[in-house]
Amino acid sequence: MTPYEELEERFRELSHLGHARAILNWDEAAMMPRGGGDVRGESLAVLAAISHQRLTAPKIQALLDQAEDGDQQLGPWKRANVRVMRRSQQRASAVPESLVRASQIASTRCEQAWRLARDNEDWSAVSPLLEEVVRLTIEQAAALGENISLPPYDALLDGYEPEARAAQVTHLFDDLKTFLPDFLERVLERQEDPVPVRGPFRSGEQYALGEKMMRAVGFDFDRGRLDVSHHPFCGGVPDDTRITTRYDKDDFLGSLMAVLHETGHALYEQGLPTDWRHQPVGEALGMAVHESQSLFMEMQVARSFAFMKFAAPIIREAFSADGNDPAWSTENLHRHTIRVRRDYIRVGADEVTYPLHVILRFELEQALISGDLTVGDIPGAWDELMTRYLGLSTRDNLKDGCMQDVHWFAGLFGYFPTYSLGALTAAQLFDAASRANPDLAEQVEAGEFHSLIEWLRQEIHCRGRLQSVEDLLVDVTGEPLDTRFFKAHLERRYLVD
Amino acid sequence: MTPYEELEERFRELSHLGHARAILNWDEAAMMPRGGGDVRGESLAVLAAISHQRLTAPKIQALLDQAEDGDQQLGPWKRANVRVMRRSQQRASAVPESLVRASQIASTRCEQAWRLARDNEDWSAVSPLLEEVVRLTIEQAAALGENISLPPYDALLDGYEPEARAAQVTHLFDDLKTFLPDFLERVLERQEDPVPVRGPFRSGEQYALGEKMMRAVGFDFDRGRLDVSHHPFCGGVPDDTRITTRYDKDDFLGSLMAVLHETGHALYEQGLPTDWRHQPVGEALGMAVHESQSLFMEMQVARSFAFMKFAAPIIREAFSADGNDPAWSTENLHRHTIRVRRDYIRVGADEVTYPLHVILRFELEQALISGDLTVGDIPGAWDELMTRYLGLSTRDNLKDGCMQDVHWFAGLFGYFPTYSLGALTAAQLFDAASRANPDLAEQVEAGEFHSLIEWLRQEIHCRGRLQSVEDLLVDVTGEPLDTRFFKAHLERRYLVD
Repeated sequence: MTPYEELEERFRELSHLGHARAILNWDEAAMMPRGGGDVRGESLAVLAAISHQRLTAPKIQALLDQAEDGDQQLGPWKRANVRVMRRSQQRASAVPESLVRASQIASTRCEQAWRLARDNEDWSAVSPLLEEVVRLTIEQAAALGENISLPPYDALLDGYEPEARAAQVTHLFDDLKTFLPDFLERVLERQEDPVPVRGPFRSGEQYALGEKMMRAVGFDFDRGRLDVSHHPFCGGVPDDTRITTRYDKDDFLGSLMAVLHETGHALYEQGLPTDWRHQPVGEALGMAVHESQSLFMEMQVARSFAFMKFAAPIIREAFSADGNDPAWSTENLHRHTIRVRRDYIRVGADEVTYPLHVILRFELEQALISGDLTVGDIPGAWDELMTRYLGLSTRDNLKDGCMQDVHWFAGLFGYFPTYSLGALTAAQLFDAASRANPDLAEQVEAGEFHSLIEWLRQEIHCRGRLQSVEDLLVDVTGEPLDTRFFKAHLERRYLVD
Repeated sequence: MTPYEELEERFRELSHLGHARAILNWDEAAMMPRGGGDVRGESLAVLAAISHQRLTAPKIQALLDQAEDGDQQLGPWKRANVRVMRRSQQRASAVPESLVRASQIASTRCEQAWRLARDNEDWSAVSPLLEEVVRLTIEQAAALGENISLPPYDALLDGYEPEARAAQVTHLFDDLKTFLPDFLERVLERQEDPVPVRGPFRSGEQYALGEKMMRAVGFDFDRGRLDVSHHPFCGGVPDDTRITTRYDKDDFLGSLMAVLHETGHALYEQGLPTDWRHQPVGEALGMAVHESQSLFMEMQVARSFAFMKFAAPIIREAFSADGNDPAWSTENLHRHTIRVRRDYIRVGADEVTYPLHVILRFELEQALISGDLTVGDIPGAWDELMTRYLGLSTRDNLKDGCMQDVHWFAGLFGYFPTYSLGALTAAQLFDAASRANPDLAEQVEAGEFHSLIEWLRQEIHCRGRLQSVEDLLVDVTGEPLDTRFFKAHLERRYLVD
């Protein structure tokens, strides 16, 4: 066996350990009874520790050295595979196993406590656990940053979005901070209130509608599922992709759009290159590209008027609704899906205000990691920035303020910016897809998604991690990430159409 | 850290790996889409191999040697813990890792093929895969037997039921083979046909009824779930016990009894000693004792007339049925639950014919492991024994013949006898429980299960693996396993009552 072949074998095993963790994580969110939480946390910690031990074994380092030496005899995929392997090994080796294990236990505990505490709006029940998570995250970020020569926050960000740096993100976000407040004002002045669509909408009917839409856009139910969890997500593995949603009996459109969002993630996973299954180069490129796929499906496709022309008759059938009722007209349903408002909750936010929610979190988490902000300061700082960016105070409303998102409580710092990087990327990709396929809008209107999904498969999904994010974007769209596609999309949808 | 303490730490980690495998196995049966099967098999194989590596590490052997030397300073639980650890280590060390891995992959593949092949009655699609499973099982049994000085079949049997031996089982089963055929004739002559209870019964209503009954007998839904799978089972871990059933729209009683059966298993798991969680001594004693708990709940409790007096009003309410309708009378519903018939399917068999199904499998699997029978011979041999024991031919009906059970296809040989050992044990334990609690029947009739469950908790569940099966039985019932309690139970229920 060559050093490269031995690396493939070892990373295949790591991928299978990752499979176990992915399914256990999905199960924890979608299936597990509350009493199973403690031991689940311990089991996940053991799996994380074993993966960490295997990834940081001296033998891997030696094999990588050898494989890199013989690098020129490998084809581009194998070379890229070695590059990604090295990246993982380097990141893992920077952090001692005991710290990995402690972090996993602390964040599982904190996340579980958050679920209860959020419902009771009991900040004091969860803040000491969050302090521990932040403390361990800072420790990890420092160790990591030192090893890969990055400032602590960049070291975390780089874990979710390879090669992204806070300075570059700040530059893009500053542009949005200039553009969005004025733009938001103009949209709010202009938009008409839709006619309310009255429920209740039963979960079973909502599930059936979601499933039908997932099938329409190409989700493979032989290799995936749709379930319910507290916070919608896409989990599992490429050949067994698990997405979740939650059902609100008064608002089926929110859940449906969430389902289509997660379906975008799932199509990416299901479309990853089968030839490179269980190898690092066959995985998703990074969280921003992942999010670009969900937002491509949700924001660029599903919230377009063309899509609603396809979906509205199916929606009306699902709920036995009358098309002559103004509430159920195609125009009115579409108006619901592109309604813009200042609101407290990120996950339900429209695409105009969403980046402001993200910028707030991006700024606060940088301050948390640098130590400029303590956990105790979060409620006040959150209130201040929400007031500044969106004109909404979250004082005495922590449930809809700093307790709304699972991320920090689950130990995810440096993740938030990828949502808006994803939105920018989605707009830039949709522009390229539209140029490549002039009939796109007609196809969407007719419920024909095959060419569109095929384009995504070819241009994004089946490339795995062969290229860097920037090389991929330049290759597919002709240039690096730029905010003008996103801004043009917003102007077209909210001020022109 | 003392050698004993280090062993505890290492076995705790093994238990957490076991947690991952238990949940992944449950997921495979209850949740996984078909396309996820290949990678799931590989992931389970990797976890099995890692557990095997850790259990067979030379360090464990050395620690066990040291702990056994200092054995007298440990209390009875810790001494028992070391004894069970040694047993696991010895069994695991006997089989090379490559064989463990090959077996796991072969049996996962075979089990998945069986699911399809059974529906299509396509023996040829699964028999080559079963041949591979048998070949690898024989290889394992030989390696194992050599290492622990047992004949190959005993080495397998011992894995499910510690200290059980084929000779002793044959002795008990021969007694049943003498008793049952005549007894069966007398029951069949005597019993009256119940009035049919007409469906359809919706899955949702059956689920709700099952859940209510589970709660009534003490299942803790904070630490467990009820779901659907092809073959009912109890999986998961003590603090997250997952039972499954399947729903037949024409027969709710079959599913309800299966739910109560699996609930008996689950109560055992949920009742294992919390002080010894994640240690070998805190686990279930063996499969026969496990089965005794499910059959105690199903056969001794749930199929008694006293239980039906409690359950019938709840059943009628669940399906909005009229108590004056003869089909729904308490007597008639009870008659359904104790109906005896010669039938093809083990899993749906009554308690009178059940041992004959088991004896058939016990005899065939001994012959498969000794090499006296090939996989190709199974259909013919099955037909012959079914005709002899139950007067039913399975020629041209493999689906209801040798393709009905998952066990062999999943690599489980030596497991079948534990079902009937469990039935014998359940009858012997129920006799002891009745002597200890003269009000038992009245309590069951009133739906008061607390004292009964408490007795099981104290006498069986919370002892874990502190004692051997025989010591436990002698302790609790006054004597080793004897068929007379089971025979007396059958006579009382089917010829006297």
